[in-house]
Amino acid sequence: VTEVRVIPVTGVGEIRPGDDLAAILFEAAADLLEDRDVVVVAQKVVSKAEGRLAPASSHEETVLAESARVLRKSGSTIISETRHGLVCANAGVDRSNVQGNEISLLPLDPDLSARRLRARLERLTTKTIGVIVSDTFGRAWRRGQTNVAIGVAGIKPFNDYRGRKDSFGNDLSVTEICAADELAGTAELIMHKSDGICAAIVKGAPVSFGRGSAAQIIRPRSEDFFR
Amino acid sequence: VTEVRVIPVTGVGEIRPGDDLAAILFEAAADLLEDRDVVVVAQKVVSKAEGRLAPASSHEETVLAESARVLRKSGSTIISETRHGLVCANAGVDRSNVQGNEISLLPLDPDLSARRLRARLERLTTKTIGVIVSDTFGRAWRRGQTNVAIGVAGIKPFNDYRGRKDSFGNDLSVTEICAADELAGTAELIMHKSDGICAAIVKGAPVSFGRGSAAQIIRPRSEDFFR
Repeated sequence: VTEVRVIPVTGVGEIRPGDDLAAILFEAAADLLEDRDVVVVAQKVVSKAEGRLAPASSHEETVLAESARVLRKSGSTIISETRHGLVCANAGVDRSNVQGNEISLLPLDPDLSARRLRARLERLTTKTIGVIVSDTFGRAWRRGQTNVAIGVAGIKPFNDYRGRKDSFGNDLSVTEICAADELAGTAELIMHKSDGICAAIVKGAPVSFGRGSAAQIIRPRSEDFFR
Repeated sequence: VTEVRVIPVTGVGEIRPGDDLAAILFEAAADLLEDRDVVVVAQKVVSKAEGRLAPASSHEETVLAESARVLRKSGSTIISETRHGLVCANAGVDRSNVQGNEISLLPLDPDLSARRLRARLERLTTKTIGVIVSDTFGRAWRRGQTNVAIGVAGIKPFNDYRGRKDSFGNDLSVTEICAADELAGTAELIMHKSDGICAAIVKGAPVSFGRGSAAQIIRPRSEDFFR
């Protein structure tokens, strides 16, 4: 096992609807990108490039429109399930890091966003690249937020240890590590929103390259004890 | 912002009750440790050093004894809340990576375990060191497991953005990033249990050094929508 490195992508300016985000990231990170890197991109810039913005005055109705189901409501806090099956505050609708009269919505299909970014980045770099679109979510039971993967392309979201034995010959009780979420959290450490860093490159991460999606991470309602 | 590096600590053998874990980690990592590094240590070796082991035959009663409250039960899966307030499968009682006739229990006080490790490591290195004791937990709503911080010493668990503004002058809606959990997840990426790597060193992480604990991460029942 060698080390993992997490490197910020700097020099990306404000993104606006219609911007070619893959080309902008490539321009900012061309010297850094190597084969089998994972590029973690903040949801906010993906949403901006895709025009997923709404007037700030529509905040409340937009949250409800983006919610497939409201799970909990307390004061101004709404925890809802989005059409994607993501459980988060305000269905991912967010006022921060957008112009004052705007709010940002989650991408319509964050896995598709990730696949498109990956296809362009692989063509531009001629290298194998994984892409994660990440957002900052709260959790049950634990205070604070962490970044998770809402879009994945080019890597499997899980490191799967099913059937493996430990060094004592016992079955491993932990079977599926969600490496995509751990990578998203890793990248968040250097993607502080107030510093304008909207992407990070993770090198050396022990993930499996290949077909994968963030949709695989959504726990189906039928398997979920807490929905 | 500079890069974050995550480096595995190799060469730590099997840990048994009474072993001086801090000295063993120091011996394995002395050349790597620098000022303001964060050392992430797997719960399993902390529990072993502290003698938190029980006969495998007592698994079921040990899970119940370690549970302050059972939240959900389905077949052989028990989701419970431990005395520490942690919500996890089987109250953290685990058969993997221990000898076949043993099971491991969570440390009695993982924050105290972290503080003791930190005090010894700081004395041995004469450097400022943060320590996280991490374990692998499932989550609500999302498949797979990630590593989280169950013990913290020498760093604040949260990066607190309350009161900060983004570049547009908006209040930041995300206020408290749980950096400790993100660091635990980062370290997991290279702490695959089957490879016998029980600790990792994180360099360059933008965390606040100072007093902090994992107890701060526990969401009080009164604030928790999902317990």
